[in-house]
Amino acid sequence: MTLDVVALDGAEPAYAFGGREAALTVAPGTVVELTTEDCFGGAVKGVDDLPSRVCTFPYLNPVTGPIAVEGAEPGDAVAVHFVDIRPARDWAVSTTFPHFGALTTTHATAMLHPALEERVWVYEVDAARGVCRFRARRSDFEVELPLDPMHGTVGVAPAANEVIMSITPGAHGGNMDTPEMRAGTTAYFPVNVPGALISLGDGHCRQGEGEVCGTAVEAAMNTVVVVDLIKGAAPAWPRLEDDLHLMSTGSARPLEDAFRISQHDLVTWTSALAGLEELDAYQLVSQAGLAPAGNVVDTNYTMLAKLPKSALPGVSAYDGVHARLRETAERYLSER
Amino acid sequence: MTLDVVALDGAEPAYAFGGREAALTVAPGTVVELTTEDCFGGAVKGVDDLPSRVCTFPYLNPVTGPIAVEGAEPGDAVAVHFVDIRPARDWAVSTTFPHFGALTTTHATAMLHPALEERVWVYEVDAARGVCRFRARRSDFEVELPLDPMHGTVGVAPAANEVIMSITPGAHGGNMDTPEMRAGTTAYFPVNVPGALISLGDGHCRQGEGEVCGTAVEAAMNTVVVVDLIKGAAPAWPRLEDDLHLMSTGSARPLEDAFRISQHDLVTWTSALAGLEELDAYQLVSQAGLAPAGNVVDTNYTMLAKLPKSALPGVSAYDGVHARLRETAERYLSER
Amino acid sequence: MTLDVVALDGAEPAYAFGGREAALTVAPGTVVELTTEDCFGGAVKGVDDLPSRVCTFPYLNPVTGPIAVEGAEPGDAVAVHFVDIRPARDWAVSTTFPHFGALTTTHATAMLHPALEERVWVYEVDAARGVCRFRARRSDFEVELPLDPMHGTVGVAPAANEVIMSITPGAHGGNMDTPEMRAGTTAYFPVNVPGALISLGDGHCRQGEGEVCGTAVEAAMNTVVVVDLIKGAAPAWPRLEDDLHLMSTGSARPLEDAFRISQHDLVTWTSALAGLEELDAYQLVSQAGLAPAGNVVDTNYTMLAKLPKSALPGVSAYDGVHARLRETAERYLSER
Amino acid sequence: MTLDVVALDGAEPAYAFGGREAALTVAPGTVVELTTEDCFGGAVKGVDDLPSRVCTFPYLNPVTGPIAVEGAEPGDAVAVHFVDIRPARDWAVSTTFPHFGALTTTHATAMLHPALEERVWVYEVDAARGVCRFRARRSDFEVELPLDPMHGTVGVAPAANEVIMSITPGAHGGNMDTPEMRAGTTAYFPVNVPGALISLGDGHCRQGEGEVCGTAVEAAMNTVVVVDLIKGAAPAWPRLEDDLHLMSTGSARPLEDAFRISQHDLVTWTSALAGLEELDAYQLVSQAGLAPAGNVVDTNYTMLAKLPKSALPGVSAYDGVHARLRETAERYLSER
Repeated sequence: MTLDVVALDGAEPAYAFGGREAALTVAPGTVVELTTEDCFGGAVKGVDDLPSRVCTFPYLNPVTGPIAVEGAEPGDAVAVHFVDIRPARDWAVSTTFPHFGALTTTHATAMLHPALEERVWVYEVDAARGVCRFRARRSDFEVELPLDPMHGTVGVAPAANEVIMSITPGAHGGNMDTPEMRAGTTAYFPVNVPGALISLGDGHCRQGEGEVCGTAVEAAMNTVVVVDLIKGAAPAWPRLEDDLHLMSTGSARPLEDAFRISQHDLVTWTSALAGLEELDAYQLVSQAGLAPAGNVVDTNYTMLAKLPKSALPGVSAYDGVHARLRETAERYLSER
Repeated sequence: MTLDVVALDGAEPAYAFGGREAALTVAPGTVVELTTEDCFGGAVKGVDDLPSRVCTFPYLNPVTGPIAVEGAEPGDAVAVHFVDIRPARDWAVSTTFPHFGALTTTHATAMLHPALEERVWVYEVDAARGVCRFRARRSDFEVELPLDPMHGTVGVAPAANEVIMSITPGAHGGNMDTPEMRAGTTAYFPVNVPGALISLGDGHCRQGEGEVCGTAVEAAMNTVVVVDLIKGAAPAWPRLEDDLHLMSTGSARPLEDAFRISQHDLVTWTSALAGLEELDAYQLVSQAGLAPAGNVVDTNYTMLAKLPKSALPGVSAYDGVHARLRETAERYLSER
Repeated sequence: MTLDVVALDGAEPAYAFGGREAALTVAPGTVVELTTEDCFGGAVKGVDDLPSRVCTFPYLNPVTGPIAVEGAEPGDAVAVHFVDIRPARDWAVSTTFPHFGALTTTHATAMLHPALEERVWVYEVDAARGVCRFRARRSDFEVELPLDPMHGTVGVAPAANEVIMSITPGAHGGNMDTPEMRAGTTAYFPVNVPGALISLGDGHCRQGEGEVCGTAVEAAMNTVVVVDLIKGAAPAWPRLEDDLHLMSTGSARPLEDAFRISQHDLVTWTSALAGLEELDAYQLVSQAGLAPAGNVVDTNYTMLAKLPKSALPGVSAYDGVHARLRETAERYLSER
Repeated sequence: MTLDVVALDGAEPAYAFGGREAALTVAPGTVVELTTEDCFGGAVKGVDDLPSRVCTFPYLNPVTGPIAVEGAEPGDAVAVHFVDIRPARDWAVSTTFPHFGALTTTHATAMLHPALEERVWVYEVDAARGVCRFRARRSDFEVELPLDPMHGTVGVAPAANEVIMSITPGAHGGNMDTPEMRAGTTAYFPVNVPGALISLGDGHCRQGEGEVCGTAVEAAMNTVVVVDLIKGAAPAWPRLEDDLHLMSTGSARPLEDAFRISQHDLVTWTSALAGLEELDAYQLVSQAGLAPAGNVVDTNYTMLAKLPKSALPGVSAYDGVHARLRETAERYLSER
């Protein structure tokens, strides 16, 4: 069987999920090559390019797409497997931004303090060595951090005909900002409109859990995904799978509600997959699960609930689609 | 130099931090051998021993201690290094408990639902093979999970002469319920009263992050710690260190405040350790840090902020006390 | 001067703010007569009409409009003064709804409990006597409660081209569900798109603060408003004014963020109106203000911050527009 | 029948609930005359007396007491009826305080901002005219506000032998900071230890709902209460009653949990008083209730749930104890 590979080129960036026609329509199983700009639309190139000067609200966090999947109908799930995520430039940036971040007053956590200083950090990216270099702005401190490229923003058109800024994570995905969205991971989304209409952007060379200061090591990316369709299998919230873990997400405020959503989904998913009565699944997840923060800065916060597959021997999610997409990815990478 | 090793025996269990005289007084650097009962006081031994029947509020979550450290004064830090945590029996238990847990209405998140079913799971513990066995109660599902013994509850007498139930985590430590509190970890606490008055309990054969159902794989433990004193170095909140990470904790509600506390402490600690200006430290922690949940079920929730030491090359916390306690631990274990 | 009075008839109900053309365009100062359906679209007529059976998601909470205001541009404020709100029928309904309400698990505060019972209460409405009658469903208890008609949902098209379900309150207004939105009140909204595009619905014969069970005494309404335009005066969040109070709103989660937003806005508004330095305004609001809940059930929660005008003698907001709209309302009512 | 009137004099101030012997023991029905210092222990007397300089942590928020009630046993309720609350001086103070308040970063909502300015406002108190005068510190603005004297802090010894700083509100009462705690109100508390051990302090000439900046118009008070005992009637959380309303309180974080606790208690209380099935009571409270904030600044936040007695015709709480205490108060005041 030959691989179906298409490139998504020349689409105008979008700044929202929903409210836009497909830029590309593909059959399930297709490999899609695409590029994404960084969350600043590429406008922050040096330490003097303060985002509040060079960017214009609401034209932030551009996403590439949407990609329609043939045959996708409300009630189905679409799978997006990340084959490759590669920084497009040899530099990346991170910044503070007025009234944005976990350790500053924001428009929602409103206080009488003036905003923290807006500052830009430029990282050198060395893809060959797999590192990016942090340089302090007010001292000589420098350190190399491992590259771990990922996408902060991936999702589908929302339910109820809503149009939601790309910066907001929710049940449709969006700006979840979890480092788990790396190459080798499959993400599952509920289909809310025909074609699902997948968009993605906000590449990060790496990010810490929580994305504490509000931005990661932001970079344009050359990215390859495989998209697939699972009929009638819409999850309530986005789920992720890698070779070792099943993961549920929840995006809400306060943070404990994001936690509750993700754990509730993981418990009911575990129950369904392993034929476990619900409280038995609750018990197993309680002892075997992990609970890292995604972001604690966006308009909704994101938590992940992760279960090692070793806790569910012999169990396969979605009929093994992750393993099949993994194979597709390997074929693509070996043939490229 | 010979090791100072003392056993703490025969102390009455306490159910609070504060309000009690020292059961043992030791010099800094002393190795202390002790035992702890499980969070049910050992009363839950089988699936019919529902905690609400066999336990009596507030006599839950007993702690062993307190241990006074000679010379400890308010403003100092005490270090508690975990040398060994060993399940005392070949079984352990976990339960749901009415109005307790992350996915149930509680006394604080008050709702009109009746409580979820109270249920007990008994785990077989095989210390030699390093596993404990989960058995579902409503199906035949079984799986072995790796042992990862730890203490849910460790802390000191609180500030302001408060007496706080052992189930509550806070700035004094207490029931943080993080799996990071394992052998090989050093925990640092602020000293609020002369001697610090360290207590610990609530051993877990393992627990998932968040302790979702409200209890872990609960077990009596034979535990060995080394305690030490660091003059004038009181942290605002408990900190942890292992060979690879520096960790700050925050215990509060809502969960984002626990997150904020832990990240704020890690940022300011990083700033102090590496001579980084504060926003530079904010940036570094944002890109290199981890943010796992401790518990999202207790009277305060606990989040951890973890920084790999590789992000701070050449930096040593508290003058290298962790490395020295590690050596003490190795000597103790080799001589035992 | 003659009153400009127009009727808004025959518009299709909308279920969102944004994404729709104006159904009516009026000059500032125009009186608009309109009707609104109840939040169930009129489908719940008796105790057997459970909303989950007779309503179809997302076709809930219909709003009438949008009304464009001539000359309104982003950066301006529009004022909506409520002249009259009159129940259109001699009955109204309230219900519980699965996974909705303050004392039940919801999709965000996700738990393992089954939903509470779905139940309908039908209220007799006696407009002449100004009362509605509550009848218990499981006993003979009955009591008359005073009518206090209001609109739960009023707002404008959102910023950033978002399209937001009518059930969500936010900076654009929407489903704030505060009993303060009664006849005699003027509401101020920021203009985000040309014309502002005002919509309203969700009439309540009355509601308690917090709208605890998730629905109020829901009724179709015959409503009269005057709309006006205040150039260059966009508030960050909706504000309200009646004869005795200035009010700011905040809609967010957790509830303390809704509180912070509303208090922050009231403090800075007070500061601007009375020429008070910001901390002086903070102090005055702290001692003189009120802080009732709007709703604690919707996708965002709403808090109000209310300052008696007696605390700001001689001060007038928005150049006295409220007083002028009050006069327009009186003329309309006397001439009708 | 003669009135039993005793004065509580000369007791050392306490700074906590719990951990202290009774300063006075009285029979149920006794009138107690007492004095309380302000929350600064009287140390802030002028605009230069910044609390962080003149006060010493944790010696803040002194309370008078404890008063033991003869015959009070765990499981009972004690009633505290406020007969008179009278400012003891012709001035009062309010301040900002570093890292305390609703619109500032705090130790829990930890951020990287420096603290807001610490500032003192001195109010003239004119008891005869029933007003206190606010003077801005940075402009000439002045305004008189009505006196509405109340106690921020009232409570009993906590359960589980805890000792809790007087600044913390909880199920034992404490620093709820609600303006409803005024003369004419009866407060009901659960008894946790023999005698109940009632303490009170933190008088306010008035406060806004939410106590936004962290302090009210703080004043020493001459206060008269009647205490009473209701056997076997312990509420889960403090309740209040005045001539027109029944009120439940909840003190927790996040603020929606304080809301949930208070509404849950009001619903179940209403259900019990009126023989209403629980969902019927939920419905009635949802339409007839009020939900003002108490404080949104303390270590726990406090919300009130208020039901007008007119919604429960013919119903009497606690066998009419409020009406009887009201009569006792009137006799005392007329005989004084």
